[in-house]
Amino acid sequence: MAKPKVAVVLSGCGVYDGSEIHEAVLTMYFLDKYGAELVMAAPDIPQYHVVNHLTGEEAKGETRNVLVESARIARGNIKNLKDLNVSEVDAVVFPGGFGAAKNLTTFAFDGADCKIDPEVARVVQETVKAKKPLAAVCISPVLLAKALSGLKIDPKLTIGTDTGVASAIEKLGGKHISCPVKEAVVDKENKIITTPAYMLGKSISEVATGIEDMVKKLFEML
Amino acid sequence: MAKPKVAVVLSGCGVYDGSEIHEAVLTMYFLDKYGAELVMAAPDIPQYHVVNHLTGEEAKGETRNVLVESARIARGNIKNLKDLNVSEVDAVVFPGGFGAAKNLTTFAFDGADCKIDPEVARVVQETVKAKKPLAAVCISPVLLAKALSGLKIDPKLTIGTDTGVASAIEKLGGKHISCPVKEAVVDKENKIITTPAYMLGKSISEVATGIEDMVKKLFEML
Repeated sequence: MAKPKVAVVLSGCGVYDGSEIHEAVLTMYFLDKYGAELVMAAPDIPQYHVVNHLTGEEAKGETRNVLVESARIARGNIKNLKDLNVSEVDAVVFPGGFGAAKNLTTFAFDGADCKIDPEVARVVQETVKAKKPLAAVCISPVLLAKALSGLKIDPKLTIGTDTGVASAIEKLGGKHISCPVKEAVVDKENKIITTPAYMLGKSISEVATGIEDMVKKLFEML
Repeated sequence: MAKPKVAVVLSGCGVYDGSEIHEAVLTMYFLDKYGAELVMAAPDIPQYHVVNHLTGEEAKGETRNVLVESARIARGNIKNLKDLNVSEVDAVVFPGGFGAAKNLTTFAFDGADCKIDPEVARVVQETVKAKKPLAAVCISPVLLAKALSGLKIDPKLTIGTDTGVASAIEKLGGKHISCPVKEAVVDKENKIITTPAYMLGKSISEVATGIEDMVKKLFEML
């Protein structure tokens, strides 16, 4: 039997301005371990900004590209998100990190009024319409809520227990379910799986437990 | 009982110009899972260069700092290597990536004639002298060989099966042991554990199996 192909969509390389690196790598690890073929993708767009992760300050004047930085996590084996054809994969996963809320959407600045990258919206919508499993980690469930907000779908999602983000998800038409860090929430009808990861997690192994649960539940749907 | 403290020394953020990200994150994951407290560190030095990981080409004119980029993997919780006091930790681990051969040493250019960052040499030497476990992943065993080459220690090390790198290790006074990707080589006398990871690995889960074996063997020495 051919391995299921799972797309992993990145948003840069670093928690404060891109993909949360642990979440991205652990997602890749458990998908590979459970038997998936990875298809890495990211949009070819500039990062909103660059953050010096040592100081937490913005690195003024520096510019980086989401696809180029995401390639660090993918070891170079990554495609432009606009070339990701949902018909060629069996599932799609979005790891977290502020990149999801700064580069893929403007959620970090605009909350429920955020804009979303059109290619990200397309991939989310096509995956749900094709009834293929769709997973999101940490803050990334907000981009699912945004992408699906026009579609008369009410996805059940978790970002853990943060009431501010949960209420933004509800404004966008999603139903928020509180969830501990070591578990994942399943929306069976829409085939959506979400886990809080570093929205709640204090350690990398806690976050890994939740991501492994998400990957297991994704495989049960394949 | 207090958790053992394990230092993880990074060399940037990205396989071609810094730490191999999967190896760094999986090292952190298994150390945390088996019960270590992580102490992340990296030298405050410029990277040798910046590589665009999408194209594999050097990003001419760009400069990045090893400590600042390593902070992406450490989520900001990282110290300058010069402030790492070996007496305050129970073991030290070096993940791989070209950063070990371009930033921490000049092995990528000079082979057995390489130079080594003085703080890296100090940490390796102090760890071995203190008879604390020392582990290295992928290409990083070459920096152990270099750091220990003046000390009348003949460390048993593996970088997998690459005969060129193995012979450079032997020139530096090390003894190279061939090893498959899913295992780690133990030098009991010197308390050194090494695993080939992406020197041989074709997939992230294979690499993870070798790193987990390394971490287990490290814990057996604690």
